[in-house]
Amino acid sequence: MKVLVINCGSSSLKFQLIDSDSEAVICKGLCERIGIDGSQIVYTPAGKDKITKVTPMPDHNRAIELVIEALTNSENGVVSLDEIGAVGHRIVHGGEKFTKSVVIDEEVIKAIEDVSDLAPLHNPANLIGIRACQKAMPKVPMVAVFDTAFHQTMPEEAYLYGLPYSYYEKYGIRRYGFHGTSHSYVSKRAAEILGKDAKDLKLIVCHLGNGASISAVDGGKCIDTSMGLTPLEGLIMGTRSGDIDPSVVEFIMKKENSTVADVTNLLNKKSGVFGLSDELSSDFRDLQKGYEEGHAGAKRAVDAFVYRVVKYIGAYTAALGRVDAICFTAGVGENSGFVRNLICKRLSFLGATVDEEANKAHGEDKVFSGADSKVKLLIVPTNEELAIARDTVALCK
Amino acid sequence: MKVLVINCGSSSLKFQLIDSDSEAVICKGLCERIGIDGSQIVYTPAGKDKITKVTPMPDHNRAIELVIEALTNSENGVVSLDEIGAVGHRIVHGGEKFTKSVVIDEEVIKAIEDVSDLAPLHNPANLIGIRACQKAMPKVPMVAVFDTAFHQTMPEEAYLYGLPYSYYEKYGIRRYGFHGTSHSYVSKRAAEILGKDAKDLKLIVCHLGNGASISAVDGGKCIDTSMGLTPLEGLIMGTRSGDIDPSVVEFIMKKENSTVADVTNLLNKKSGVFGLSDELSSDFRDLQKGYEEGHAGAKRAVDAFVYRVVKYIGAYTAALGRVDAICFTAGVGENSGFVRNLICKRLSFLGATVDEEANKAHGEDKVFSGADSKVKLLIVPTNEELAIARDTVALCK
Repeated sequence: MKVLVINCGSSSLKFQLIDSDSEAVICKGLCERIGIDGSQIVYTPAGKDKITKVTPMPDHNRAIELVIEALTNSENGVVSLDEIGAVGHRIVHGGEKFTKSVVIDEEVIKAIEDVSDLAPLHNPANLIGIRACQKAMPKVPMVAVFDTAFHQTMPEEAYLYGLPYSYYEKYGIRRYGFHGTSHSYVSKRAAEILGKDAKDLKLIVCHLGNGASISAVDGGKCIDTSMGLTPLEGLIMGTRSGDIDPSVVEFIMKKENSTVADVTNLLNKKSGVFGLSDELSSDFRDLQKGYEEGHAGAKRAVDAFVYRVVKYIGAYTAALGRVDAICFTAGVGENSGFVRNLICKRLSFLGATVDEEANKAHGEDKVFSGADSKVKLLIVPTNEELAIARDTVALCK
Repeated sequence: MKVLVINCGSSSLKFQLIDSDSEAVICKGLCERIGIDGSQIVYTPAGKDKITKVTPMPDHNRAIELVIEALTNSENGVVSLDEIGAVGHRIVHGGEKFTKSVVIDEEVIKAIEDVSDLAPLHNPANLIGIRACQKAMPKVPMVAVFDTAFHQTMPEEAYLYGLPYSYYEKYGIRRYGFHGTSHSYVSKRAAEILGKDAKDLKLIVCHLGNGASISAVDGGKCIDTSMGLTPLEGLIMGTRSGDIDPSVVEFIMKKENSTVADVTNLLNKKSGVFGLSDELSSDFRDLQKGYEEGHAGAKRAVDAFVYRVVKYIGAYTAALGRVDAICFTAGVGENSGFVRNLICKRLSFLGATVDEEANKAHGEDKVFSGADSKVKLLIVPTNEELAIARDTVALCK
């Protein structure tokens, strides 16, 4: 079956067409600046050059039409419309309702709407993508795959904050966690790489990208993760603060005479390694260069980032009671031997050692712990689109 | 020397008179409801019954007069005024300026005022206490002992948040940590109990009271602690939330149509185990009773509290690279074998075992790890007043 995977944002739409038999990507691309001047679709059919088409895209309906045209046109199309057997949608927030992927019907759409206050920027955009696809492909079954679903196995002690319990009951304030599709995919893949049953493994998955989160996976089930009610909590990220004293919000409001919305924006867009490095960059390639050249901000940002990851690995080791393997994934985790090395050389409490040669790998499955290491260290490239395609096929066969 | 130790709040004033030679408490007491109707002084001369005197206390000057009267009156006084050789003041926030205790002069008072925006409720009250004592005992030397000082050895990676660096430079937004006098006292005492040089020890100190914090102490120096810019961050406390997603502040403001000050109040006064337990109690004796009787809220609160402590122990083990001993202190840490046991039985990753008999101790120095435990577990009663008296004498000899 050919599965179209859609990740729809408020002004962008990423897509991949995947052959579920071979699991090959047939075509992938991106619609940018939807509803904004200068919109364009950029896509790459497998084995071909990238194609860019600047064209008006007043709404997501038009964006989906352009995606279908890109996939099916006679010149460089890759399929006919009736070959697309299913569509898988990435949905950011499934609240407590969705513990796994589901076939989309009106009830599911209603439930996604119901938890939109938990992800007010993302869920409405995801729903627009669903509606646009339904309009363009009314007979094709569609599946919702939730970023939060994998983390729904967390026990109460891990997902409750130290708040009045009534705030959980009334407003759903709790830890949800995100990047669940990635944490799920990587933890399964790690078991395959290690040749073990996932049920027997205690894993820590470090998803280190521009957004970054870490999870503790016990016997295939998530027992804790660093992102919380929103994707702001936890690790220091590209531009997000991660954990801070909650009093900082009011403190900054008073100092700057600003609104809470201003502070939320600051914490999401101007903080993280970008803010710590005196705005040098949120990209770890730039930060590594700065670090090696003695840029004080780059060193400060990388050191704080690494230290936070090390502390979470310690916390989750305690939560799991033991850790068999630590997996690194996403942009930084897969590609930066520099960052992996800084983290892993501080894991002496686990008896971890690094095989420096193996740690030069990037973007490929790799065990990079030393032969004498007491814990396995793994690079496991994530593939959220493939995970979404797999879930979609499983529900639409 | 007789040292008067003063801990002055906005409407209360605790005091102890300590003989620095024998380190015995000669008298201790409390002025309550200063500036409020129904004020009283309650004090206990060593070996005598508690004395309560309900009397008007319009301001702190009058409170200090009453303290001196209590200590020196002919009926049940314990000293003459000229025997009081020095006064030690507990000061909540010393910012980055004070890394140790100092003799109070006008410059010190000015510096304490300068960091008052970091502790707007506490530092001004502490200063009122200093001024009142200066007025009553103009010739007696006084020392300021800071709650933050011990933590000033933290490295940058531990004290910086993932915020724009300019916010640290402009506003001093960073982790400071509190309960420093207790963490310092307990870590020194632990070395004595273990018969080791503090320089060779890696310790985790769990100060678990109504306020609760945890610190990592490496070779006698604090390298990290759970409280931050304010005492709100970190562990789940009696009524304080500890760590939450910083987005929760705005989320509650929107849901409740409330101000940020309302939310700060909620996070400080109505949260923690009190809030989680459906307001059953912030007192662990009540929570233990509820837990054992099957009260859902008590179980939920205790489990979340314990889990948070366990995660911090893991995080600080990673930060230290190794841990030799874990120390429990303050109200809950010293007295609740129930809580200590729940925490320590989850430290299997450290190879910790509990000597159930020894763990029955409370309020006394005690090693309660099992003979086969790979990490020492200690009860170390804290004594912040004695630590303040010692610092005071050392600077006033």
